[in-house]
Amino acid sequence: MTIDAGNIHADLRPDPAAERFEDLLSLPGVRIERIVSLGQASPPGFWYDQPQGEWVLLLDGAATLRFADEALPRRLQPGDYVWIAPHRRHRVEATAPDRATVWLAVHLDAPLAAVDASGR
Amino acid sequence: MTIDAGNIHADLRPDPAAERFEDLLSLPGVRIERIVSLGQASPPGFWYDQPQGEWVLLLDGAATLRFADEALPRRLQPGDYVWIAPHRRHRVEATAPDRATVWLAVHLDAPLAAVDASGR
Repeated sequence: MTIDAGNIHADLRPDPAAERFEDLLSLPGVRIERIVSLGQASPPGFWYDQPQGEWVLLLDGAATLRFADEALPRRLQPGDYVWIAPHRRHRVEATAPDRATVWLAVHLDAPLAAVDASGR
Repeated sequence: MTIDAGNIHADLRPDPAAERFEDLLSLPGVRIERIVSLGQASPPGFWYDQPQGEWVLLLDGAATLRFADEALPRRLQPGDYVWIAPHRRHRVEATAPDRATVWLAVHLDAPLAAVDASGR
């Protein structure tokens, strides 16, 4: 499944009830996704622990991202990108409550991403 | 080679003499790159014909992209993304002459991208 073309800021429809996930490109081993948040955060005490690597770029809005192996959270502004290596535990502490936060996420399956994970 | 984190709009240093290419993530089969253009275009008559698939997102500036199999060029504004399937011939007709044009390009090697190319 592949969207030939579009605009990443179009048709955001932020929803306070749930984040919106859309695949922009999906191929074996790689998936490019748009995520639209509106005040959502990871549940208290929940940590993502993903076998995939994830390269994430915040395009609009604001978010607070936390890694289990770091003392302080990272405050993300538009244009900030972060590489999340496989199995690096992390959570989203907060997203802006008053406007859409738009993420571009590139998910890389383990055989690809593991190479880099070992290099951390 | 992986940059842990950064801002896609930082340190652009647009150069009228040459486009700037920087790898943000490089793993077997996948490469995420920032390209900063300032008025550059593909040479007259030149067409890219790449074995890789390329998912491209224009973040700042403006560009005109042309596919060999389309009659009209596409004018790209910030937020516009386009999937360029492997071997789909294309060229950049123009980029904004007066300000930086910033591209995010996700390059996918043939074994990944070919699956989709067959589906076009």
